[in-house]
Amino acid sequence: MHESDAGLLAPGRAGSAAEAATGDHAFLQALLDAEAALTRACSASGLAPAGAGRAVTEAADAGRFDVRELALGARDGGNPVIPLVAALSGAVDEELRPFVHRGATSQDILDTAAMMVASRTLALVLDDMGRTADALERLAVKHRDTPMPGRTLTQHAVPTTFGLKAAGWRSLVLDARDRLRTVRGTLPAQLGGAAGTLAAFSSGDGGPVGLALVTAYAEELGLAEPLLPWHTLRTPVADLAGALAFTAGALGKVAADVLTLSRTEIAEVAEGSGGGSSAMPHKANPVRATLIAAAARRAPGAAATLYGSLAAEDERPAGAWHAEWEPLRDLLRLAGGAARDAAELAEGLRVFPAAMRSHLGLTGGLIVSERLAAVAAGRVGRARAEEILTQAATLARDEGRPLAEILAAEPAFDGLDLAELTDPARYTGCAGPLTDRALERR
Amino acid sequence: MHESDAGLLAPGRAGSAAEAATGDHAFLQALLDAEAALTRACSASGLAPAGAGRAVTEAADAGRFDVRELALGARDGGNPVIPLVAALSGAVDEELRPFVHRGATSQDILDTAAMMVASRTLALVLDDMGRTADALERLAVKHRDTPMPGRTLTQHAVPTTFGLKAAGWRSLVLDARDRLRTVRGTLPAQLGGAAGTLAAFSSGDGGPVGLALVTAYAEELGLAEPLLPWHTLRTPVADLAGALAFTAGALGKVAADVLTLSRTEIAEVAEGSGGGSSAMPHKANPVRATLIAAAARRAPGAAATLYGSLAAEDERPAGAWHAEWEPLRDLLRLAGGAARDAAELAEGLRVFPAAMRSHLGLTGGLIVSERLAAVAAGRVGRARAEEILTQAATLARDEGRPLAEILAAEPAFDGLDLAELTDPARYTGCAGPLTDRALERR
Amino acid sequence: MHESDAGLLAPGRAGSAAEAATGDHAFLQALLDAEAALTRACSASGLAPAGAGRAVTEAADAGRFDVRELALGARDGGNPVIPLVAALSGAVDEELRPFVHRGATSQDILDTAAMMVASRTLALVLDDMGRTADALERLAVKHRDTPMPGRTLTQHAVPTTFGLKAAGWRSLVLDARDRLRTVRGTLPAQLGGAAGTLAAFSSGDGGPVGLALVTAYAEELGLAEPLLPWHTLRTPVADLAGALAFTAGALGKVAADVLTLSRTEIAEVAEGSGGGSSAMPHKANPVRATLIAAAARRAPGAAATLYGSLAAEDERPAGAWHAEWEPLRDLLRLAGGAARDAAELAEGLRVFPAAMRSHLGLTGGLIVSERLAAVAAGRVGRARAEEILTQAATLARDEGRPLAEILAAEPAFDGLDLAELTDPARYTGCAGPLTDRALERR
Amino acid sequence: MHESDAGLLAPGRAGSAAEAATGDHAFLQALLDAEAALTRACSASGLAPAGAGRAVTEAADAGRFDVRELALGARDGGNPVIPLVAALSGAVDEELRPFVHRGATSQDILDTAAMMVASRTLALVLDDMGRTADALERLAVKHRDTPMPGRTLTQHAVPTTFGLKAAGWRSLVLDARDRLRTVRGTLPAQLGGAAGTLAAFSSGDGGPVGLALVTAYAEELGLAEPLLPWHTLRTPVADLAGALAFTAGALGKVAADVLTLSRTEIAEVAEGSGGGSSAMPHKANPVRATLIAAAARRAPGAAATLYGSLAAEDERPAGAWHAEWEPLRDLLRLAGGAARDAAELAEGLRVFPAAMRSHLGLTGGLIVSERLAAVAAGRVGRARAEEILTQAATLARDEGRPLAEILAAEPAFDGLDLAELTDPARYTGCAGPLTDRALERR
Repeated sequence: MHESDAGLLAPGRAGSAAEAATGDHAFLQALLDAEAALTRACSASGLAPAGAGRAVTEAADAGRFDVRELALGARDGGNPVIPLVAALSGAVDEELRPFVHRGATSQDILDTAAMMVASRTLALVLDDMGRTADALERLAVKHRDTPMPGRTLTQHAVPTTFGLKAAGWRSLVLDARDRLRTVRGTLPAQLGGAAGTLAAFSSGDGGPVGLALVTAYAEELGLAEPLLPWHTLRTPVADLAGALAFTAGALGKVAADVLTLSRTEIAEVAEGSGGGSSAMPHKANPVRATLIAAAARRAPGAAATLYGSLAAEDERPAGAWHAEWEPLRDLLRLAGGAARDAAELAEGLRVFPAAMRSHLGLTGGLIVSERLAAVAAGRVGRARAEEILTQAATLARDEGRPLAEILAAEPAFDGLDLAELTDPARYTGCAGPLTDRALERR
Repeated sequence: MHESDAGLLAPGRAGSAAEAATGDHAFLQALLDAEAALTRACSASGLAPAGAGRAVTEAADAGRFDVRELALGARDGGNPVIPLVAALSGAVDEELRPFVHRGATSQDILDTAAMMVASRTLALVLDDMGRTADALERLAVKHRDTPMPGRTLTQHAVPTTFGLKAAGWRSLVLDARDRLRTVRGTLPAQLGGAAGTLAAFSSGDGGPVGLALVTAYAEELGLAEPLLPWHTLRTPVADLAGALAFTAGALGKVAADVLTLSRTEIAEVAEGSGGGSSAMPHKANPVRATLIAAAARRAPGAAATLYGSLAAEDERPAGAWHAEWEPLRDLLRLAGGAARDAAELAEGLRVFPAAMRSHLGLTGGLIVSERLAAVAAGRVGRARAEEILTQAATLARDEGRPLAEILAAEPAFDGLDLAELTDPARYTGCAGPLTDRALERR
Repeated sequence: MHESDAGLLAPGRAGSAAEAATGDHAFLQALLDAEAALTRACSASGLAPAGAGRAVTEAADAGRFDVRELALGARDGGNPVIPLVAALSGAVDEELRPFVHRGATSQDILDTAAMMVASRTLALVLDDMGRTADALERLAVKHRDTPMPGRTLTQHAVPTTFGLKAAGWRSLVLDARDRLRTVRGTLPAQLGGAAGTLAAFSSGDGGPVGLALVTAYAEELGLAEPLLPWHTLRTPVADLAGALAFTAGALGKVAADVLTLSRTEIAEVAEGSGGGSSAMPHKANPVRATLIAAAARRAPGAAATLYGSLAAEDERPAGAWHAEWEPLRDLLRLAGGAARDAAELAEGLRVFPAAMRSHLGLTGGLIVSERLAAVAAGRVGRARAEEILTQAATLARDEGRPLAEILAAEPAFDGLDLAELTDPARYTGCAGPLTDRALERR
Repeated sequence: MHESDAGLLAPGRAGSAAEAATGDHAFLQALLDAEAALTRACSASGLAPAGAGRAVTEAADAGRFDVRELALGARDGGNPVIPLVAALSGAVDEELRPFVHRGATSQDILDTAAMMVASRTLALVLDDMGRTADALERLAVKHRDTPMPGRTLTQHAVPTTFGLKAAGWRSLVLDARDRLRTVRGTLPAQLGGAAGTLAAFSSGDGGPVGLALVTAYAEELGLAEPLLPWHTLRTPVADLAGALAFTAGALGKVAADVLTLSRTEIAEVAEGSGGGSSAMPHKANPVRATLIAAAARRAPGAAATLYGSLAAEDERPAGAWHAEWEPLRDLLRLAGGAARDAAELAEGLRVFPAAMRSHLGLTGGLIVSERLAAVAAGRVGRARAEEILTQAATLARDEGRPLAEILAAEPAFDGLDLAELTDPARYTGCAGPLTDRALERR
């Protein structure tokens, strides 16, 4: 089918569980699930014959409908539910047709389906986030005391440990997991009818049959029951946007670090199996990190569109709602793809402590200048201490001599063990205890 | 001062409490508060003399420093803390100077200050959100049974009530309030030192003095204690981004509706005191809604930048962090300004039930066609019912005749009370019960 | 195929020419076209045997490759060109295989393909923009003197004409057309080899064979020859982002107006054939405008991602490039879909001058208060004039009396023809001449 | 003044010419310039007494007005022009007051002022872009033949030259310059009156005095004459958004490279005078690049808001316009600040060819594997060549031996000069000619 996309431009998600869970087929099935749940709830509430729920449930099989035809049929009314209702009605016995989509508006079905798709996809994303957190925990434990240069504004600052770095990554992953879980637990069904009053579900005597129907409908679907129809109260979508953009960004932090540490000149880590190149057989590209980084660059724009759609006029809006569908799916896929890549990355990451150790010496001891300045300040005052260190730093840089050697001649350091004082591995501060504490979080 | 901005381009926030709480002066004071808290914590932990904390606290008065000079001084190192430390040091006795900013990195102070500013501003925003929710509650109660056209895709759909609409607005406002509160309760202090290891705070024997110091520091500030230094684990900033963008968007929904309902042709509501025009004395512009709508358009872009800054490399990044400062302030101001405007809008909103009632008749009864279709479907089947209604609708539109009159001649409606059936006020479904239920939420 | 998308969530583009021109199949063909052009250019330059160009050209038929397999194969190296080169090589005789993709890097091929796809799609978009401009021109001519309320901040301000409005819409459409044309005329081929030095194309004697090859390659493709390889000099992509976001936004302006003017209470225009509703047979939704409005909401986020990708490190980046592919396609589709919808909308728009005329009377003459104030100011001074008008406006609003009647008793208007002065149709200023002038632009 | 901002959070722009040109004071002066030009044009056209233009021009001095008071006064009507007109009127003789702001709407003045500010700021930005381009040209010339590793996906790919890199940076800078110039040349004055019909400027006999007045007004201001009032035809603002976001992004590319090349492990370039650190005396941070990178991260979000404001309803919109003011100023400042920083960076950049040369050896010759593969393929076929190279690469990496040594034992390279073949400096392809060609562009 020339008109369908099969992921050619999307290696980040191609073949992932999240891709399958968010595809047109999955959305179609979720639309059908919503229709079927509605009819079943109507049957249970007496708004439809008992057989209607059964019949629609049986007919509600995505494999029986033509996605492309529905897509084209959506042109007329602006959404795919309209042609779907016609097609679904055609698939049940004539006397039951009035009970297909009975009383609902297209948005009831599409919003509900989106929540179903989101719920199913988030479960998959959470699995991969769990795998990632576990792998990072193993790395943090193993490298609790592996010293490496702490880098700030691209420059060596003071030493840190790879354990603390991995624990930090894990902490972000758990933050993302917590936000995804929270959102997942609140995803509501949508049912309001034409303008959110449930009018078509109200009994003749004005009793609130509608409210009970919403309860039944949400239960059928395993989604939360909404306090109000939320056709233009888009909290669920905005919450998804925030949690998913956070997830992509959190993984983007891991990727940013892996990309930096993988650089040919740094090479302190490497992806388990780097990607090949079409031209250079020797290259081992950090492909997983690259794809995650790409997802992190894209998620904010999609989230911005969804936050923008909060400002939706009237009972159901002309455009704000329609603008949500693809960006929401994009976000689910970006986060889902990035989560898969992060799990692969974390589980396969190779760490090279020797390279880290070697780089700690690159500045000839300057990486512990903070410590030296503090020690000297206690002896000769802060101003003089900074002066001494700055001069020594310049000398060390210009002449390529180790700092310990230069400072040996400096009275302010008389009698001190300069070898110990300038040993980066002895200046990792609370990196160990911080790592321990961070790993206690489950 | 020609180089300062005083809100000329920002009527949305000018004069608001949030503006004052986020201004350069407020940020400067928060920076100083952070420095003072750090020195006090050091004094308490034995890392500084007892007098140091007192002295720095006394010196830490924003009124004593020149904001512009600090702004220009920030050019050198890329942030304002560097010149501030120099200036603050100069304001305490020489022997205490080494204990100013002792062991900290600029980002410790700036991040902490940002959290202080956010915490103080959110308190103000929450006040205004509370006022707004209260006013909307009063509107919802008062207009629980005020019928009005439900509008979807700009067209009359079925009737709703203004009470349900106001209850929906309130529901969004409460959602925003809850998200703001949650975030506010978690805003952490920042303290990690040069690369997040707290190395400069560690005692000689390697004991974790640093961790205790962070506890003391956070307590001094009334901020949460972070599990880890979060120089490049930007959960707090991303959470603020999400909650603030949500707030602006939630209020943007209210504004979108008020703008629509205020239109000259609709005039179902009006702002308490509409804004004047420089050219047309008769105009009463919905200025509060306009300014809120503008904030809602801007917030997503600022939030996108902050979500993008999650992908920050190394222990402290070169750019991602610097890109946060102004967008975070912008978001606090956009939400804070919009919250003030929303409170004013909600408290002053004038509602015109007569106009609403009159508009219900605009389609000559077509606004209840859903109901009629359902009734007819029960008698002649859905297909035939739709056919009848579509023909009647066309006739009603083309000839300007009321639907009840046209349908009187239609066998499918024989013996029914068409006056009742076509009365929009009798077809508001569960609007009342939904409103009641929504108002139970506190 | 369960894993492919067929537009179910995208009624804005489903079935459009732009959709087909940007689908995976079209991208695959463009990738193959780029490979074939490269080999032909190599053959012509003596870097490959004469038969190689022919053989690859023959093999380069998208129908012979499996898009999904390529998508999955792209996981390894992070882009689909790597598996495509393997597959394409397998489709030519063994001795010619070394000349497939000879000297190129994946990005050469993918960037070139993206430019091919963009060029082909822009041609289609330009067609629809032309149709739209023509239809708007006809509307502007026909309604050059059709008065209607000018609305500002949602309120009636002073009269305008529908002709001027349509001429304004057309002006934006032409602005978009001009920007699209300009960009289209500059879209370059990409060829740089592994790091943009064309090293693999250089002859042994160091002569610049590479430069000539780029010329030949660009000519084969009908694309512009780049001054430099632009692997990380992303001007072409950013220019596309700007022009396409502009196009979506320009059409979004038309849609915003149509949505407003279509409202049930206003009904000054209607789409040729409004979309149906799944619940309400009478509804005629402005579906074309809705879908355009949705596109206009989404385009800025996609463009932001592309502008963000300008900041791409090194000779070829890890993420910034990968983040471009889908947003660029999204933008082409959003603009392409919106252009189709705009053409349909403009060609079918129904205009109701009687409704416009009727609304001009809604404020009882206040819509010309600017004119009255100016006239009165000339007689009694501006301050007094504003006072008089404000009082009269209040009276007119509160008592529902026409302004002419109230002002008849006002000395400041003694002897003036109040019927003429308060006739909105006589106060359209330069609307006519402005319309004429705008229509002279071709 | 506690309520004003003096750049504390904005080191990127603090003290820059662009900051001064975009401050509240500058905006106020531009508003006054617009008012004065309008009255002068009215005087010249006979719509005001001759003295009115002179009097308003004399009064139109920003120093005479209180920015903060105007900011607060803007709350009522939603924009600062309303209180400004009152204040300006008060500053001229009573009989001339009716000719202050005569016939204009607030948006006429604010839009015109924004274009004045943009025009003035762009001139400054263009100066800095020129300085940057010149400095980069010098670097490109000087380092035309300085070999360095070409890096792709963070890994060494094939050699390139620093000259080509600098020429590429310059090319982007010139692209930005061209776009800024083009936009600057088209910035239009705004004059339409209340609803864009110029009604208040029309003579009694319906003649198009208004059109001539726009011409005179635009000439007074040195801005382009618009074809139509553009209150809701926002091409000028969108064009500025695109050009400014492009500029920030283009400079962001330079910054991204400088940040990478400045890393402690790479150190192939350094900023002229690196920024200090508050904790570590040895650090020389790439502060200019950091601030540029921050600007590049922020610009897309601001541009997205402006592109979003294209979709502005009616003759003048309620929110879309108001949402533009601060983001437009932000963009001018982001681009202006980044341009200043880029000029400083480019003029001061220190380049270390020895480090570049040294890094070329880091992969033990693998950086020329593409060349070796091509040579070997010509002898033993592509498949076998890749096999040989992959094995050799593994060996070289694992055993730390130079590639030339390993390949010496390989029959496929019999008789070849492996020292020459593996010399990275001999494999820079067309880097030189490309640099030359790029520098021909002026």
